[in-house]
Formats: sequence, C-alpha cells, structure tokens
Amino acid sequence: MNTFGVLFRLTTFGESHGPALGAVIDGCPAGVPLTTAMLQAALDRRRPGQSAITTARAEPDQVEILSGVFEDKTLGTPLAAIVRNTNQRSGDYEKLKTQDRPGHADAVWRERYKHRDHRGGGRTSGRETLCRVIGGTVAEAYLARDFPQLSTVAWVSQVGNLVAEVPAPGLTRAMVDEHPTRCADRAVREAMSQRILEAKEAGDSLGGSIDIRVEGLPVGLGEPIFGKLKALIAQALGSVGAITGVVWGPPDLLARIEQPGSVFHSRKDTYGGIQGGLANGEPMQLRAFFKPPATLAEHAKGGRHDPCIMPRAVPVLESMVSLVIADLVQQMNARHHTL
Amino acid sequence: MNTFGVLFRLTTFGESHGPALGAVIDGCPAGVPLTTAMLQAALDRRRPGQSAITTARAEPDQVEILSGVFEDKTLGTPLAAIVRNTNQRSGDYEKLKTQDRPGHADAVWRERYKHRDHRGGGRTSGRETLCRVIGGTVAEAYLARDFPQLSTVAWVSQVGNLVAEVPAPGLTRAMVDEHPTRCADRAVREAMSQRILEAKEAGDSLGGSIDIRVEGLPVGLGEPIFGKLKALIAQALGSVGAITGVVWGPPDLLARIEQPGSVFHSRKDTYGGIQGGLANGEPMQLRAFFKPPATLAEHAKGGRHDPCIMPRAVPVLESMVSLVIADLVQQMNARHHTL
Amino acid sequence: MNTFGVLFRLTTFGESHGPALGAVIDGCPAGVPLTTAMLQAALDRRRPGQSAITTARAEPDQVEILSGVFEDKTLGTPLAAIVRNTNQRSGDYEKLKTQDRPGHADAVWRERYKHRDHRGGGRTSGRETLCRVIGGTVAEAYLARDFPQLSTVAWVSQVGNLVAEVPAPGLTRAMVDEHPTRCADRAVREAMSQRILEAKEAGDSLGGSIDIRVEGLPVGLGEPIFGKLKALIAQALGSVGAITGVVWGPPDLLARIEQPGSVFHSRKDTYGGIQGGLANGEPMQLRAFFKPPATLAEHAKGGRHDPCIMPRAVPVLESMVSLVIADLVQQMNARHHTL
Amino acid sequence: MNTFGVLFRLTTFGESHGPALGAVIDGCPAGVPLTTAMLQAALDRRRPGQSAITTARAEPDQVEILSGVFEDKTLGTPLAAIVRNTNQRSGDYEKLKTQDRPGHADAVWRERYKHRDHRGGGRTSGRETLCRVIGGTVAEAYLARDFPQLSTVAWVSQVGNLVAEVPAPGLTRAMVDEHPTRCADRAVREAMSQRILEAKEAGDSLGGSIDIRVEGLPVGLGEPIFGKLKALIAQALGSVGAITGVVWGPPDLLARIEQPGSVFHSRKDTYGGIQGGLANGEPMQLRAFFKPPATLAEHAKGGRHDPCIMPRAVPVLESMVSLVIADLVQQMNARHHTL
Repeated sequence: MNTFGVLFRLTTFGESHGPALGAVIDGCPAGVPLTTAMLQAALDRRRPGQSAITTARAEPDQVEILSGVFEDKTLGTPLAAIVRNTNQRSGDYEKLKTQDRPGHADAVWRERYKHRDHRGGGRTSGRETLCRVIGGTVAEAYLARDFPQLSTVAWVSQVGNLVAEVPAPGLTRAMVDEHPTRCADRAVREAMSQRILEAKEAGDSLGGSIDIRVEGLPVGLGEPIFGKLKALIAQALGSVGAITGVVWGPPDLLARIEQPGSVFHSRKDTYGGIQGGLANGEPMQLRAFFKPPATLAEHAKGGRHDPCIMPRAVPVLESMVSLVIADLVQQMNARHHTL
Repeated sequence: MNTFGVLFRLTTFGESHGPALGAVIDGCPAGVPLTTAMLQAALDRRRPGQSAITTARAEPDQVEILSGVFEDKTLGTPLAAIVRNTNQRSGDYEKLKTQDRPGHADAVWRERYKHRDHRGGGRTSGRETLCRVIGGTVAEAYLARDFPQLSTVAWVSQVGNLVAEVPAPGLTRAMVDEHPTRCADRAVREAMSQRILEAKEAGDSLGGSIDIRVEGLPVGLGEPIFGKLKALIAQALGSVGAITGVVWGPPDLLARIEQPGSVFHSRKDTYGGIQGGLANGEPMQLRAFFKPPATLAEHAKGGRHDPCIMPRAVPVLESMVSLVIADLVQQMNARHHTL
Repeated sequence: MNTFGVLFRLTTFGESHGPALGAVIDGCPAGVPLTTAMLQAALDRRRPGQSAITTARAEPDQVEILSGVFEDKTLGTPLAAIVRNTNQRSGDYEKLKTQDRPGHADAVWRERYKHRDHRGGGRTSGRETLCRVIGGTVAEAYLARDFPQLSTVAWVSQVGNLVAEVPAPGLTRAMVDEHPTRCADRAVREAMSQRILEAKEAGDSLGGSIDIRVEGLPVGLGEPIFGKLKALIAQALGSVGAITGVVWGPPDLLARIEQPGSVFHSRKDTYGGIQGGLANGEPMQLRAFFKPPATLAEHAKGGRHDPCIMPRAVPVLESMVSLVIADLVQQMNARHHTL
Repeated sequence: MNTFGVLFRLTTFGESHGPALGAVIDGCPAGVPLTTAMLQAALDRRRPGQSAITTARAEPDQVEILSGVFEDKTLGTPLAAIVRNTNQRSGDYEKLKTQDRPGHADAVWRERYKHRDHRGGGRTSGRETLCRVIGGTVAEAYLARDFPQLSTVAWVSQVGNLVAEVPAPGLTRAMVDEHPTRCADRAVREAMSQRILEAKEAGDSLGGSIDIRVEGLPVGLGEPIFGKLKALIAQALGSVGAITGVVWGPPDLLARIEQPGSVFHSRKDTYGGIQGGLANGEPMQLRAFFKPPATLAEHAKGGRHDPCIMPRAVPVLESMVSLVIADLVQQMNARHHTL
C-alpha cells in the first residue's frame, strides 16, 4: 500500500535504481500557490551530498511537475511530480545480485517477492523518502494558505550519545538549517558533526533522535478512534525506515512516566499537545528515535553511505507530519456545513 | 473514523454511558470456530473489578453475538457483538455537565463537537477498548486456525519506577495472568501490586510500560510503504488512549541507539523482528509506554477509577496487534494465486 | 466489504435468520436531530406486510438505537441501531439445508463460503436492505439540517409491461405513499396493484422500474474521477440485489440516445442533472430496472414472498442515493477552509 | 478521488493539455511479465487518429514506464507509466478562456474549482481514459498469468439507431478489431462506419452502446454487500464520462423484465453471469449505453472531435472491467490460507 491519507492523499512510486521516483498528491484544493521552485527547495534540504556529513552519492534530485498545476496554482486535480535517477551506477551493485547486505531488508524482501531488484535497495532504499518530501511540501503549501499561523519544525536532538538541549520557543526551519547537523543547540552541534565525520571515516554509523514541534494546530484535530492525531502521527513516522521509536510529549516524557499521576498531570505540557488523541491547542511535541544506518563502509563504495541519516531526515519527518495534518484538517472540515 | 483495517476490519461503536458498546468485524473468513464463550473469556481479562488493583466500577461486560456466527462457526458475513452498559449511574456524573475533568479530553471534545455527552467519558472513555478486545479475539480465532504456531503475549514491564526483568522465552498468557499485575517477574510484581494499592488509597495513579512479543509471524508480513508492519503497529497502539510512546525492538533498545552502527547491527535481535518494515522471521518485540491515568480520586466517586490501567490494558494491546496481523496476513494472501 | 462511503460511512450486518440485523453510521456530524421514531417511520415504509401486495412474512422491524444519540441529537460518534429478527420460523427452511433455491444465489454462496447459513437467504436476503434504510435515514436527517431545499423522491414507474406517465414536478414522498404500489400515476396504478395481486395468487412475480428525482443538489457535487456522483450512484444502486440496470437521465433517455448529438444536446434535461460526472444544478434523474423476484410460490411457504419488490424498494433506493449525497457533500466540504 | 480499487489499485493523473498523463498501479504481484510494448499496443487501440472515423487530433500516445518493472517483470512495487501530451495547440483553445463549451462540464467545473484550466477539457477530457487503459493492461497481464482461461471482450453493439446482432460465442478482440467500428456484425458495420463518416462531415455526433462479455470468472467473485461484482462494475463503468446507462444481463434484458418471473427465471442466461451480486460461473454479460459526444464541429477546430466515441471506448471498458476483476480476485484470495 503506497498511498497515505484518506482525503489528502499521497501515492508514491519508484525504486532507487529505476528510471524515476515520483509522487501523486490527490485531494489538494484548487488555487493553492505552488511552483516547481518550491518543490525543488524542499528536496534540496533532503538531497544527498548537501554537506560533508552526508553520503557522497551525488544526485541533483531535479523535480518535474507533470500535472495538477497551471499558472503556478493547483488545479484541484491530482498533482504528479517526478525525480529521475541519474546516478544509478548499477555496476556498483552487481555483486548484490547474489549477496544480501547485512542489516538490510534484502533477505526479507527476496523471501516476500521472489523477484527482486538487485540493483540496490529498490523500494526499501531511503531514496523513496524524497517522494514524501514532495507530498509534504504540497501539504504545507495548502496549509500555509488556510492556516497561516501553523508551523512545523523538526531538529536533530541526539546523535550517538550526544544529547542537545531543548531549544527555546520560536525555533524556525531557517535556524535549524544554519548548521549541517540540523541541531539547534550551538553548544553541542559542532561535537555532533565531528562525531559524524569520525564515523564516516571509520566506515561506521550513528543513530539518535529528532524532535518535532507543531504550533497553531486547530483544537480538536484528529478523528476518533482509529484516526486520532496520535494514531496517524504514529503510522506516518512508523512508516519511515530508520525510525525505531516514537514518543508523543515533551522531550523528557519517558522520565516523567515514572512519576505518580498527581505529579505527571500537574504540568500542562505533559500531554504534548494531544488529549483524547486530538489536538488540545497547545504545541504538539514529538520525538522519533533513529537506529544507526545499516550501510557501513565495508558494504558501500566510495563513501556512498550516510554515516548519520538524521540531518537529511528532518524534512522527511516534517513532511510526514504535514501530510497527517492536511488530511485531518480536511476530515474536520468535512463535517462543517459550508456550501 | 471508527473502522480499523483494510480487509480484516473492525468497526467499533458505543459510549461509556449509552445503551451499549459493540464491534462489527468484517472480513473474517467463513468456517472459523467462534463462540460467545471465547469472546466472554477475552472480555473477562479486560473487565473492571477483576482484582483489588483495578477500578471498583462493577460491569459484568456480558457479550452477545448478533450476527456472523452459525453453529459455532463464522459465516464469512460481518460478525457483530455487543455489550450493554449496566452500571451507568449517571447521577455520579451530573456535575460534569458544567465542569470538565482535569487531565481529560472533555474540553477538547466539547470544542470539537459542541454537543457532548456529559454523562462520562463517552467515546473517549477507556470502556471503548472492550470493542477492540472483541475484534482482537475474532482475529486470534482466525489466526489460530491458519497459523497455529503464532503466539502474541503482552505483559506489564514497568509500574511507576519499578522495572521488571525481561522474561525468558516461552512466556504464555496463562503465566502472565497468574498475578493480578500481569507482570511476569516474580521478584518485582508483589512490590508493583503493593505500589498500585498505595496509589489507589492515596487517590493517585501510576504509569509504566507493557512489552509485547509475537512469535511465528510469516516472513515478509507487511505492505510497503505505508502499510508496513511497523507503521500499522504504530497506528494500532497509537490509537490507545493512555499510550504515550512506542518502541519497536528489544526492551533495551533506547539504550542501544547510542551505540555506533558497527555495534548496534552486530546483534540480530536488534531489529525486534522487523526489517524494512516487514517481519523478518525473528520474534517481534514491542514496548508501549503508558502515562498514569488522569482520573484521580478527587474527581472520581467511591474508588471508581483505575489507579494503574496497565494490567487491564494487556489484552487490549494483544488485540490491537492481532488485528494488525490478521489484516496484513490477508493483504499478503491477496497476491498469491490460490483459486 | 460491508461498509459504504468514505466519510459518511454505513456498515451493515445481520443475516435474515440470525438474532438481529443492524447498521453503524460513522461520520455523521454532532448535533443533528435524530430519534428512534424517525428511524421507525422510515423502516415502516420498507416493512413486509405493509399492504396486501407485499409478502405475508410479518416482521414488526422494531428499531433500537444503541449508540451515537443523546437527548435526541447525534453525538458525532458512531450511531448503531439494530432490528431483531422475530419471525424466524427456521422450520420453514429446513429443506433448504440440502437444496438450493432456483434463481437464488444459494449455490454461488455455498461455493464461495463453504460454510453456509441454510436457514434462509442469510446475507443475500432482501432483509439486509433494512440496514440501508437506517443509514439512509440518518443521512437524510443530516442533509435536512444543512440542505433544507434538498429533496429525494423515488416512485414505481413500471410494473411488468405497465408503464406509468412521468409525474409532474413537485412530487413528494407523501404523494407517492398514497397508493400501495408507490406509483404516482393515478391512471395506471390500480391496474398495477391488480396485476401484482394476480401474480401473488398465481405464485408468480413481476419486475419493472423505479425512477428517482433529486432536487437541490449543490452544483459540482461529486469527486472526479472515480468518485463522480454518477459512479457512486451506480455503485450504490448496483449493490441492491434486484436491480439489473441503471440509467442516468430523463425517463426516455434510452430512446434519445438514437438521436444525433445535435438533437440530443439541444435539450438541457438530457443530462439528468449530471455533467462531467458532477451535479450541474438541474434535478438529478435516475431510473433503475428491476428483475422479477426469484422466490416464486412453489419455493415459498404461505405467501411468504413478495410478488413485486418495487413498492418496498422505493425507500431503499432513496436511502442509497441519500448516503451517496451525504458522503459527497462531506468530501466537497473537506476542501473548503472553514475552521 | 482519483484512485480505484482496494488492493489492486489504479491512481490516475494528468490534464488534456498539461505536460503528461499517467497511471500508478499499486498491488500488482511481483513476477508478472510486463513490457512497454504491451502497454503501447493497448494504448494504440485507444489512440486518436487510428482510423478515418475518429478524431484527427494526432497524438502518438507514447508510453514510458517509470517504476515497478525490472527485466520485463513486475517487481511488486508500484508501477508508474506516463504519456506526454505532444499536440497541445493551446492556441486552438484560447477562446475557451472566457467561453464554456455547450454540452460540456466546463461551467460545472468552473463553479466547483474556481481555478480552471481553460486550455481544454483538462481532467474532464476523454484523454484521461488512456490512464485507465494502462491500468487495465497491467490488470490483464496479471490475470493472464493466474487465470489463463479468463477472457474479456467488448464490442460496439449500436450506433445511432443501427443495432448489431448479438455475436456468436467465441468472439475475440482480434475479430472485433478487424473493422474500425469495432462492431462484430458484418451485416451492419459498414453502414455504421458510413453513418459515422456522415456525422463527421455534418459536424454532428452519434451515441449507441457497447456490449461486454467476460468468460472464465471464478465462481463467487465479488464482495457482499457493497463490493459485489455488480456494484463495482457499475462504479467502474459509471466513472466513464460518456456512459449514460448500464445493464447487467444479456443484450435483450430490458425487454425481458416485462416478463413474469416464471418466464424470466426459466432461462439461465438471464442473470448475465451474476447472482446475489457475485459471479455464478456463467459468462458475465454487460451493456453500456453511450450518449453522442457533446463536441460538435462548430465548437471544434479542423475535425478535432470524435463523431462517435465508441470504437475507441472499447479498450477503455475492457480495462475498467479487468481492473474490477483483478481487485476482486485479490480480495477473494485474501481469505484463503496460502502462506
């Protein structure tokens, strides 16, 4: 199932070594300002090779809009956009024809589908997440029109055992992008990038966590019982390959659950902006834990692996959250009489 | 959206103080052995008042099957079952007409729906989870027929700051049910129940965690990209009110992510039975974190609150996991030619 | 798949000879006036034994609301309602255990599900349509609040070879209900009921057609491409057992398609209120063709069959159309910014 | 909603005058033989300008596969394919910026979406149906592997008031394609093409009907109640723009419904291969009525309109039927234990 959402729907396609990857966004209203440049800017934040601490696989990830936009506005019809794979170098992967990569899903995939694309991760490759950034960017363009006060910002909060301080309110994407780690804590981010470079040289990798903060959500957002904001956020983040844990709540929530209820419930931020599964009007706070990437130097060619995927995952997580919000906003709209 | 699943689908209905709660299970094959007694036994594990450490709200939670079963076998038609509310005591809740309960979603719900059932939690009440147990039990009856080697067992792994040892392989539901805490660690469970009783007397509440272990999953189970086993488990658990965090992996996973990839990936159990989002043939391991219940003594009448919800949540989590598995098994079957 | 709709969703359950049939309506907004009496009045229009020309199977079809309504208004939670089967007389059907009824789907169902409910039609019985009337009535209550000018009226337009005149604009359900045939043409309806009584006595049955007219639809209703108003009406009517053909357009449309386009397109009513698959602001006109019922006297006991199903099918078709409209209205609302 | 199907899913995108149209097929199993040539051959049967009796709009409709196929077999991942628009000639349509075309949905679409693509029909254009042919061809490749005995053949059965004889059993697509009308009746098809040419010269248009015959369906195919074969065929055909009526049954069914049940049910073919909404093992027979195209010479430039759309609609209808079958086959598989 490669479609996400009930009303605002993202369908993705493409393998890491096929002709192209792409996304179809269905359900975006007509009249939303949207340009190729907007999609490109978002993809550039996820692009490989954007800094010294990411993979050396050079892919320009140039996006082309095929439908759904006319005169820089959405038409209300499905918006399709594609990115062609240019750096396929299948030769690099020839030995994978007979050999599964450790820590990867190759064996599982082979067992499941019998016929496998041995040229690379195929559909399990992290490259697939570029489609989500396309979808998330359309969602954000739509939300920006109807909810100008809404903001969704993610940042790297942990790399290996280096933990960042919780940033002050008012953090923006521009502030996060200031540093290649996408960590907002000036006291620790240099150490983080140093640690990532060391891992890169050692052919090793690092995990950690990303925090997400969403302000300006409409109160009550979410569809009980199975379409609760909390449940759909979980599905959205759980669908991202490297994520291995999700917490709804403030950054120190896992420590707080040891407290008795009388203490736990005495602080309003304890709900992370979600009560009864719905948005309660406070900022929504999330934490996603990442395992270290499985591709280590011994299995990759010429630095073509990400020692730490999180700096590039920041826009992916923002996109997944924005897709959930856009879909739930429409489900909430649906019950209001407006015609 | 009160329906869960694509093919094996659970639809739930009912408010905590309305005439009845119920479940419709659509997509269960014909010929699966199923009786009222099987549903009742499962509901009894979730029933309030089953031990000294749960709420005193006495509800027999008697189940009646309305359709879908004939001569103790499923018909392949929708199976509907209901539980009537007997202990409504609306008077208890009269003051809630004008007053929201702290820590509860009352205010959010009122803002969203304008017209609210002030008699109690309504649809946000934990009572709604009995419908999930009905659905999960049907899922398990179906899976037991087609996957006799499959087992799904959950247990309480933490209460407040009391943490249980990871149980040895081979843990069964019967072993978990031996103790009212549903903790399998004999060294700590007495202290846990003591702690819960103290909280009950103090009108306080406790959170913690539940671990889940699933053995015998077919390799490859899960539907990339958005229907991955990992993503749907996340949605399923994220839809449960009290859960505030989910981890896919062994119980100590959050400590392990500080390790470099070369260490992290050196242990096979590190994936918690999931790779590329799909089942990899190893036991699936999950951990769900619970916040302490928001209903404290000052807001409840005569002990009618659960000081610690986790012992009763164990069958709910098993049910949600079984629903995900049943649905994904059918999606996997769908692509095999069998007619 | 026993659920219909994307946002305003009807799930039905129940076999003709099981304990009960029922419906769960999910997605109805909170605050819509709704009472048991409203549902009962709608079911009484579909009830067997309501006149001399219907089956003698006496079922009071008493409805009970289990959830979703509080103080005569919807709560925004799933509305469940059931009707218990009282006149099961399984003995009547004992011989069906080993013998399929000609013209019925018994053999097909047995082949498909192996385990079959031989007590009667089970899920293929027309009794299942009472669940649709429950759903349709909730849809109409919702639409009546938000679209007071909307009206959906169906009537019997043909019985055997007796064809009614097209009624004048302004036809109401009360006018249709004046006569047991639910035909609005005074010149032919007496002959129709006479013909039906003759068929009843002869143990025979009659088919024909029902016309539907919907006024007051919002312009543009429908979701291209696969959720067009035209497509969903087709699915809704195509799911009704006895229907064997559907025409979108004025009653004489099948004659008009022989005309060249220059003539065909010169009359505005030629589109039946639908253009590009969406409502165009004109009255929507539909015709559904019915085959004669397959249950003939030789296979039924004591007049327990309907010689002509159409008079009782009128509210079923109105309900199916209303369910489509309610769902599409919400999908249309969804893209408008209203929060 | 531009996605069709529950498991075997087609998502379509593209406007008639945008950069490209395309289709994403999700849910096709891995290992199905599929090539660009197979898709191209299918599109060539729908292509404009393929004979003297179709529009002169010359579009090569060259297809490119972007994902989901590797070494001429499907990967089990989403298959995306696109067709670029080459003959856009927007100048032809400049006057449409301010003027709606009579008989078209332009006004409805403008009212609904406010922002409209005035370059042409956009999403309401019949060009959109090429995406369905892509989807249907993948469905047929899949079905050909698992159901080699299955055949789906459609043909033109009426043009204006010229009605063809019902063809003998054993009709193949090759036989249908022998004549540009795609009518199998040698006695009338020359007159049909003559009539179409006359309409073309007169700037007029013609409607009629297409019949469809499906042999080899597995008994029981279809998902009660709302996913019945009959209901989904209705939705599939009802989503095609020019179709204005659908009949399930033999070509003379509408005449037969005047017969009493004792006569009607005495012929086995009377059910058109569907009983209880499911396939009964007999050939499935369908008829779809078409209105004459709304684009007449006065509104089109240089013969750029189809005087009679039906010859080109034949592969579109076959595709829609094949999509329904592929999806229902998977839903039927889903409940069988096969792992």
